[in-house]
Amino acid sequence: MTWNDSEIFAREGDLAQLAASQVKYFIFPLKSGQVFQSHRGVIAHDDLIGKPWGVQVLSHQGSPFYLLKPGLYELISTTKRNTQIMYPKDIGYILLRLNIIPGSKVVEAGTGSGGLTQVLAAYVGEGGHVYSYELRDEMQNLAKKNLTRINLSDRVTFISKDIQTGFEIHNADSVFLDLPNPYDYLLQIKQALKSGGYFGTLLPTTNQVNKLLINLARNDFVFVDVCEILLRFYQSEPEKFRPVDRMVAHTGYLVFARSVLPGEV
Amino acid sequence: MTWNDSEIFAREGDLAQLAASQVKYFIFPLKSGQVFQSHRGVIAHDDLIGKPWGVQVLSHQGSPFYLLKPGLYELISTTKRNTQIMYPKDIGYILLRLNIIPGSKVVEAGTGSGGLTQVLAAYVGEGGHVYSYELRDEMQNLAKKNLTRINLSDRVTFISKDIQTGFEIHNADSVFLDLPNPYDYLLQIKQALKSGGYFGTLLPTTNQVNKLLINLARNDFVFVDVCEILLRFYQSEPEKFRPVDRMVAHTGYLVFARSVLPGEV
Amino acid sequence: MTWNDSEIFAREGDLAQLAASQVKYFIFPLKSGQVFQSHRGVIAHDDLIGKPWGVQVLSHQGSPFYLLKPGLYELISTTKRNTQIMYPKDIGYILLRLNIIPGSKVVEAGTGSGGLTQVLAAYVGEGGHVYSYELRDEMQNLAKKNLTRINLSDRVTFISKDIQTGFEIHNADSVFLDLPNPYDYLLQIKQALKSGGYFGTLLPTTNQVNKLLINLARNDFVFVDVCEILLRFYQSEPEKFRPVDRMVAHTGYLVFARSVLPGEV
Amino acid sequence: MTWNDSEIFAREGDLAQLAASQVKYFIFPLKSGQVFQSHRGVIAHDDLIGKPWGVQVLSHQGSPFYLLKPGLYELISTTKRNTQIMYPKDIGYILLRLNIIPGSKVVEAGTGSGGLTQVLAAYVGEGGHVYSYELRDEMQNLAKKNLTRINLSDRVTFISKDIQTGFEIHNADSVFLDLPNPYDYLLQIKQALKSGGYFGTLLPTTNQVNKLLINLARNDFVFVDVCEILLRFYQSEPEKFRPVDRMVAHTGYLVFARSVLPGEV
Repeated sequence: MTWNDSEIFAREGDLAQLAASQVKYFIFPLKSGQVFQSHRGVIAHDDLIGKPWGVQVLSHQGSPFYLLKPGLYELISTTKRNTQIMYPKDIGYILLRLNIIPGSKVVEAGTGSGGLTQVLAAYVGEGGHVYSYELRDEMQNLAKKNLTRINLSDRVTFISKDIQTGFEIHNADSVFLDLPNPYDYLLQIKQALKSGGYFGTLLPTTNQVNKLLINLARNDFVFVDVCEILLRFYQSEPEKFRPVDRMVAHTGYLVFARSVLPGEV
Repeated sequence: MTWNDSEIFAREGDLAQLAASQVKYFIFPLKSGQVFQSHRGVIAHDDLIGKPWGVQVLSHQGSPFYLLKPGLYELISTTKRNTQIMYPKDIGYILLRLNIIPGSKVVEAGTGSGGLTQVLAAYVGEGGHVYSYELRDEMQNLAKKNLTRINLSDRVTFISKDIQTGFEIHNADSVFLDLPNPYDYLLQIKQALKSGGYFGTLLPTTNQVNKLLINLARNDFVFVDVCEILLRFYQSEPEKFRPVDRMVAHTGYLVFARSVLPGEV
Repeated sequence: MTWNDSEIFAREGDLAQLAASQVKYFIFPLKSGQVFQSHRGVIAHDDLIGKPWGVQVLSHQGSPFYLLKPGLYELISTTKRNTQIMYPKDIGYILLRLNIIPGSKVVEAGTGSGGLTQVLAAYVGEGGHVYSYELRDEMQNLAKKNLTRINLSDRVTFISKDIQTGFEIHNADSVFLDLPNPYDYLLQIKQALKSGGYFGTLLPTTNQVNKLLINLARNDFVFVDVCEILLRFYQSEPEKFRPVDRMVAHTGYLVFARSVLPGEV
Repeated sequence: MTWNDSEIFAREGDLAQLAASQVKYFIFPLKSGQVFQSHRGVIAHDDLIGKPWGVQVLSHQGSPFYLLKPGLYELISTTKRNTQIMYPKDIGYILLRLNIIPGSKVVEAGTGSGGLTQVLAAYVGEGGHVYSYELRDEMQNLAKKNLTRINLSDRVTFISKDIQTGFEIHNADSVFLDLPNPYDYLLQIKQALKSGGYFGTLLPTTNQVNKLLINLARNDFVFVDVCEILLRFYQSEPEKFRPVDRMVAHTGYLVFARSVLPGEV
């Protein structure tokens, strides 16, 4: 991965984050001869290549930028997308609840623009793999581009298929569904998951959660847990320390469960 | 790691989670000849060894348990501890904000009972490493035991040292401090971090945050971000879907920043 | 009302709040010859009568108490009860949303132990009135005692009746239902309310809210609003300013609507 | 008050709320010969006068409106203002915590555009009174207009004065400060309050709260309580029941305390 090695100096081909502030930044690959342009002025890539990471550079207008390597948080926050992507507050918790660690074999449906897919691909490491299902071709193509951008496309198998007919994957450690009707696919999920494996999903409405809860109980999913995460940012001014005025009130309800064997032996 | 392979059957030496419910479970290594005991009855380990993961077993009293492999979430929730450990809601978000991924070189102080250390060790993978500082010997010994339990102690270097005199680590990708006075160690943190690297901490009081914010600005840390995460659980009854009655109101304020080079080149 | 006059000195018959802390206090009427007893020691009422309000007194053990007049907040927080009472965070907002002000004619069902009834009786003033319905005699008797304690029973008409057969009240300004199935009484509520009047209720589960929303739309209730209120307390220590550790996560969903005339004129 | 009598039909001079939705409405006095205009069309006041409250009327374009009497909540939400007004979620709770009931004698500083003043004036009833301090003439004039609009200006004494020199009021039941530096006026507040009386304030930053907490302890204010209120609205669609996407994250920290006599008798 170009975005996580130990190089001290920016090289041609590296993915760079040019940041004017915590929320205002640009991520792009460095290419000799090209020019970064923004309303704060222009900077030639050749003036960035060879510079140490973490350095401050000025545009021709004199506007300051920091030259940084982007991290996962910055990458998914700027993912090109056609749909609502998942939020880091939810993704981080999902990682732990679904035990997604280096070596994990993870199934995801639907891929969308690949926001979560990027994180899954990073965390399963070289020894793990992600199987990501998506019916809409344009979404899948976008997701592929986003994965290629961070050099992780070899950790993901993209599959165009209606999961109603089943996943061809078996013995997965975890399955995450980002679809409006996960309750329609519980048998398919069970067949994909190893026994004792983790299932998770994110649903915007209580009606969807209710329907899912009813169906989980009927399909030998146990230890069902429903929660929501609220994230509140603060103004980082020490003399006026207070929460910001407005916040995201809702992304969705997280539902987690474990797939077990039916009955008792 | 015994707790994340693809074996279908429980073997001697595996770490097992014997679960009566989402919140009531026990984690222990399976050893032939030993007996699991709880107020819901006893089960011989030999009656578990060889069983498929995800199976339901009954104690001699007839109380049902599921035999599961524990995941990271379950492991850190049952970590033996002498102090307050960090919560999964915060840890998951920290992973993303500090870009802790397979291959990362991470510095942590203080270790405490090793709750966060276990997660860091799991996520840096075989190619990464964690350097964990702790002055109190009994805490460090406890953390070592907790890491050994999950077979990840080789990914962690435990160090007994006052970090006031500096970390001997350099070029770290990320530094996390779980200490009451992170503002006293900012120079040391800068020397440990690679340029552009991530710093994070969790602080219970606004007074600590204020002091840190003042000092971060003076030490070339930029893009400072302060937030808090609230997690609300729901009763998973579809006919009476509602939040649970009480919740954790506060664990701490999360502060993130990036270390950059001073001035402009 | 003995609890809101302008007297400076405590008199026999006054309701007194003897407070050791913000959360530890006792409310009782002052009676010559009687003795207040707690595990912090005893105080003769005669040692309180004639003292100025706001004074500190010591028990025979030397434990300090403040002698205060109780306010509505303190009164409802110590209401004798058999059931869950409503929380001040919700009650205060209901007052504004249902426009309960001096002179209002308010209908309430069910009374319960009269926690909300006390507040309604206080706020409708001498010119207003509260009609409170409750089927359970023991609850109604308890509510009557609680209203008598604060000298406001003449502002409340307590009615023992199944509201399925209708309220005999008409032209009410506001109707509040504290019952699990408000959706069963919408016609009765409409008949009790004046045209344009306010309806409100508090429901613990999303299932109840869903059912109510469907039925409100069918019964010419408009401008339906659903919300929930979260209250977070802080430790009032200036050097360690932070939220308290735990909080009430949920009391209920508040639903408000206005009753209008059907169709168009 | 024209806005809380029991008349069934709208009369000339009444304050009317013409509402297209829960959040889209207009409040104005009915005057024969005048015309209501909005982008949804026009309606002659003479077509409203004489109509029953709660009726639906159509603009000349055919857009439907409901003709309603405005309540306190709707009135303060549409108060003409130059500054940030207080939110109903906070005001309702303040009413209970400061025991503001019919008959109360309340001191407020600063008046601002009179949002809170309107609520206080309504709730103290005919037997109570509000003393409201404001140094800026234009704000005070605006507040007077807002109070006159709802016919409650006779319950409020507006005072132009720097409260640093003291309130001329004594024996007040409650004092509320909506000023950035309440800690500078604690002696003045004590002199205005009756012994045992209630003090409250709303402060945006933790720094202000810290300073206030230190000073309250030095001035014989006891039972100090700090809290914040979060209000979350839901989409009122029964088939897609969920919180709205965004919410107000912060208005301020509420601080309450009671003024007591110094020392022990």
